Amino acid sequence: MSLNEKEWFTEAFENNTAFAVHYTKKLYEAQSEFQKIEFYETPVMGRVLSLDGCFMVTEKDSFVYHEMITHPAGAMTPHPESALVIGGGDGGTVTELVKYPSLRSITLCEIDGEVVSTCKKFFPEISSGLSDSRVKVVCLDGAAYVKQFQDEFDIILIDSTDPVGPGKALYEMDFYRSVKNALKKGGVATFQTESPFFMANVFSDTVKNLRSVFGHECATPYLSVIPSYPGALWSFTMCSNEPKDAFNPQSGLSDELLKSLDYYNAQIHTAAFVLPNFVHKLIS
Amino acid sequence: MSLNEKEWFTEAFENNTAFAVHYTKKLYEAQSEFQKIEFYETPVMGRVLSLDGCFMVTEKDSFVYHEMITHPAGAMTPHPESALVIGGGDGGTVTELVKYPSLRSITLCEIDGEVVSTCKKFFPEISSGLSDSRVKVVCLDGAAYVKQFQDEFDIILIDSTDPVGPGKALYEMDFYRSVKNALKKGGVATFQTESPFFMANVFSDTVKNLRSVFGHECATPYLSVIPSYPGALWSFTMCSNEPKDAFNPQSGLSDELLKSLDYYNAQIHTAAFVLPNFVHKLIS
Repeated sequence: MSLNEKEWFTEAFENNTAFAVHYTKKLYEAQSEFQKIEFYETPVMGRVLSLDGCFMVTEKDSFVYHEMITHPAGAMTPHPESALVIGGGDGGTVTELVKYPSLRSITLCEIDGEVVSTCKKFFPEISSGLSDSRVKVVCLDGAAYVKQFQDEFDIILIDSTDPVGPGKALYEMDFYRSVKNALKKGGVATFQTESPFFMANVFSDTVKNLRSVFGHECATPYLSVIPSYPGALWSFTMCSNEPKDAFNPQSGLSDELLKSLDYYNAQIHTAAFVLPNFVHKLIS
Repeated sequence: MSLNEKEWFTEAFENNTAFAVHYTKKLYEAQSEFQKIEFYETPVMGRVLSLDGCFMVTEKDSFVYHEMITHPAGAMTPHPESALVIGGGDGGTVTELVKYPSLRSITLCEIDGEVVSTCKKFFPEISSGLSDSRVKVVCLDGAAYVKQFQDEFDIILIDSTDPVGPGKALYEMDFYRSVKNALKKGGVATFQTESPFFMANVFSDTVKNLRSVFGHECATPYLSVIPSYPGALWSFTMCSNEPKDAFNPQSGLSDELLKSLDYYNAQIHTAAFVLPNFVHKLIS
């Protein structure tokens, strides 16, 4: 069958594979200073945000991404007080962070203010954490912004797009060093590090670069599954400035927080760090 | 963008989401007695088999499916001597089974002989196990075939298509009871049980039905990731006629067998049985 762009929003990855969603209405389309922003209404994935033609957020599966970038770091950090999210203009990662009562300050640094404002409008639930009084939103280049901080944050989450366009600076060694400097001793920084299936080289290079900055024992990849992303098997890499046993969270999460989650649980934490053989080979 | 069927093979799942692969050549197309069989040559997924328009096997990601339907059962079964595969005409599951030296007899029961013959031609590596001298191929309806056996097999693997067309009989209670009868005491039967993302009801109903036949403690779902299947997060359910602790394989696999694998390892075995919260909810 053929897919018509008047009925299907299609992301073709490197012109080799494609994921498409049937939509009933295009809700929004605009070119911001940085990228093309589109929102679609779809019967099965709910509302969908695309940036420069790539699936970024869908109401159906974004809980996986937002929980899995946030809570492994949260479970490794006893009583976090300050957190920084770089990228993540949809607000979903902040919405997970506001569930930590110990956090006194949560900063979202998103380069594109139009992503933040449109997500507030079209994703009221996903972005709901942005209205929490502890949250500050700054619309700046995250790679430049983080340089000013030293020993500042317990948790830093790099909720980036792919390493093209506005997201490119978030894959540079200089940025990794800045993030390490901005972490408090004992803090955790988690980076989204692409798919080991269709982006094996980006995954492999990113993990190796993070290990060269943080140290081999202080940068540990883990996996989850996000059907709307190319390859679906999706990686994050948890980094710290002192060795941590990622398989065994020191603090864990409160029962109340755990009850609010649809993907993450204590067993998933440990299981996520177990890698299939082909993923091991990519980073050994 | 639009996807043209002259360049892209597209599977649309319930007309709501679609996965597509860019192809350079259609290698084969025929209507068998049971279904439409197509093979494509693609740059990124290798050769692809489609049955009735659905992705069945790709050279890129089929190792996940074939290893994960086979080796969790293999690791739970000390010294298996006889195995039965129902469906699985591509031969990939048999190719994993022939790695067990203790197996003296491996029967493949595939309803459509044309799937077997074309896969031998177009997937010589994936189907290579079919030429092992211990393997017998019968082209019959698996649901009828298995009825003749009692206490016969150490391992039965239900390598079925979706519950439509020729695969429908493999989702019936009567079939589950026949499989249970055909298992030796202490044997293991593993069923592919669809995706908890886009086929939540089929997954949920199938697990519940298997639990009603085998007993709640004797039917345990587990997960893997197959990018070319709808939803990518893919489930299997391991069943037995006596309680087994699926998390802790009794026998495990030999070092030699483990070395041949690209996905499964001892830690993956345990991690695969850990379910995200939303999957737990579907079956509780």
